[in-house]
Amino acid sequence: MWVVKTQISEIGKILEDKKELNLCLLKNTSDRHKILPMKEIHAVAKIESSLLKGARKYFEQHDFIEVVVPHLTKATGACENVVTMFDMDYFGQRAYLSQTAQLYLEVLTPFLEKVWCIGPSFRAEPHVDGRHLTEFTLIELEFAGNFEELLNHIEGTICSMIDCALNERTEELQLLNADIERLKKLKRPFTRVTYTKAVESLAELGVNWGDDFKSTHERILVNMNGNQPLFVTHFPKTIKFFNMRENDDNPEIVNSADLLLPMSGEAVGAAEREYRYEKLYQRLITSTMFRQLVEKGGSIRDFEWYLDFYKKYGTLHSGCGIGLNRVTQFILETDDIRATTAFPLNKESIL
Amino acid sequence: MWVVKTQISEIGKILEDKKELNLCLLKNTSDRHKILPMKEIHAVAKIESSLLKGARKYFEQHDFIEVVVPHLTKATGACENVVTMFDMDYFGQRAYLSQTAQLYLEVLTPFLEKVWCIGPSFRAEPHVDGRHLTEFTLIELEFAGNFEELLNHIEGTICSMIDCALNERTEELQLLNADIERLKKLKRPFTRVTYTKAVESLAELGVNWGDDFKSTHERILVNMNGNQPLFVTHFPKTIKFFNMRENDDNPEIVNSADLLLPMSGEAVGAAEREYRYEKLYQRLITSTMFRQLVEKGGSIRDFEWYLDFYKKYGTLHSGCGIGLNRVTQFILETDDIRATTAFPLNKESIL
Repeated sequence: MWVVKTQISEIGKILEDKKELNLCLLKNTSDRHKILPMKEIHAVAKIESSLLKGARKYFEQHDFIEVVVPHLTKATGACENVVTMFDMDYFGQRAYLSQTAQLYLEVLTPFLEKVWCIGPSFRAEPHVDGRHLTEFTLIELEFAGNFEELLNHIEGTICSMIDCALNERTEELQLLNADIERLKKLKRPFTRVTYTKAVESLAELGVNWGDDFKSTHERILVNMNGNQPLFVTHFPKTIKFFNMRENDDNPEIVNSADLLLPMSGEAVGAAEREYRYEKLYQRLITSTMFRQLVEKGGSIRDFEWYLDFYKKYGTLHSGCGIGLNRVTQFILETDDIRATTAFPLNKESIL
Repeated sequence: MWVVKTQISEIGKILEDKKELNLCLLKNTSDRHKILPMKEIHAVAKIESSLLKGARKYFEQHDFIEVVVPHLTKATGACENVVTMFDMDYFGQRAYLSQTAQLYLEVLTPFLEKVWCIGPSFRAEPHVDGRHLTEFTLIELEFAGNFEELLNHIEGTICSMIDCALNERTEELQLLNADIERLKKLKRPFTRVTYTKAVESLAELGVNWGDDFKSTHERILVNMNGNQPLFVTHFPKTIKFFNMRENDDNPEIVNSADLLLPMSGEAVGAAEREYRYEKLYQRLITSTMFRQLVEKGGSIRDFEWYLDFYKKYGTLHSGCGIGLNRVTQFILETDDIRATTAFPLNKESIL
């Protein structure tokens, strides 16, 4: 009897290894078209499809309006880092492939109140590894509302995504060996910890106030939270995007949040946005991003339309960007972003 | 009494002129951010949002799976015309901004059966006018099925889009002076006419078999059909994309269709696809598109992955691309594509 048991567990082990092997194959980006017939890739595509559907369901239920945004932009399409923007010739002027639609969504919030878009975000990242893609899907929302509402919308969207995958893709999740029970038992509301508290709990690792977290730090923080999603809030102003709104009580921090997920780390970046012209202008021209832009030959002219808008308009608003592949990583429990979509794009995988 | 009536109709005329004026302002692309506060632009954005929702509703009801496709591609992202592709440096090799996801969706149809995507399509068109944008939204579907099913899916998608706008956006349609009754009374099924018959009816204008239609021809054909949507089917092989499938009875024509809409002309391009390797290879290397590619310094290597796939896989499939802005033009009855979206992109409007 004992022998039989062992044999069964051995077979189980072999099957499990085979699944591991196939998930491992999904990391291959050098000849992607050759692995398209794998049923694991079809399962991943179907799960991704349901995650997107779940996000849209949340937006529709909460009266968000979809906006069609440009992907060829000036530097206003940058997301913190101008250096990783792809640039190109656009009829004699320089254009960029956008990293975020944030600023384009923002200027519509005074009129449409709640807006969203889902589309490609581009990064000129030459690394071929499990953490970088040159193009990935960003789910973005902006609305006329505050930080508290923002965290609720993020949690609501993420949970709607996961619920939709659980409802529609049991078979696919099983095929990929996903832990369905774990996903069903997500602890809500998501825990919140301030950046300052998080730094304190990482003090032994030499993390100081003002430092940005490395992925190991994010992993430890999530582990401390019982491997559940974790909001880290109120980051130092100096390490965040220029238009994140200063906290009223402490101008050294901004009303921002990162959502950390097990396996993938930072899956969402979010904040209340500054909307007062003078503040915006000062924050912009003293930002690291702006310095990078000038070094690249750019200037304030790239931001003229945006600043011009806030001379006349602008009201309280907040928003976020959700990295779809990061959510998929969490669901599939993979630390490799290349295993999360049918056509992961990096330096070598362009088709 | 007569006087009062005149006054009312005068006021009506003035109001109507004002609407015309505001729609006219929506064509402005030189300082787009300045007109974002106009309520007409908000109405357009809301209608566009509902049109997209209507398309997705149809896909969900018919078990289509959404696929995330790359927008940085080799020449396999080309849609008939390599000359109008934006190119850029991609870590030392040439990459293009994709015009269509067709080929990427196609290779998944043997496995996922029905797939779709909605995303940006790029065109390096320097014209600043009412007919050209450098980026616009393409709604694409591909499925394992034939030409007849394809036309049904197109009609179903278009009608679901319009129904959703009618259900959700009465106020906005009224503000923009759209003819709601006309939209409610769309004649279904859409009329079908073969290319050959269409050429016959345009013979007086000097149109010969083998010619492509100009926009004036499309307008006349739609007028002949009582200003209702019109499928023109079975175009000559020589003027269409290399992988449109030859007709079994007449190899000079392909199983293709264009859907013509009042005001916008060709809103949908559709076809059964070739899937036999030898045919595909021959059609590709003798195509105009391929000649253009070679002239641009490209080669067959760009299509290697795609051809390689069809050596082993490939089954009957069909698909189409629906130009969202063309549908919006039809609904708003505007001949200017710049009036159909919040951020229309052309040479001068980049933000």
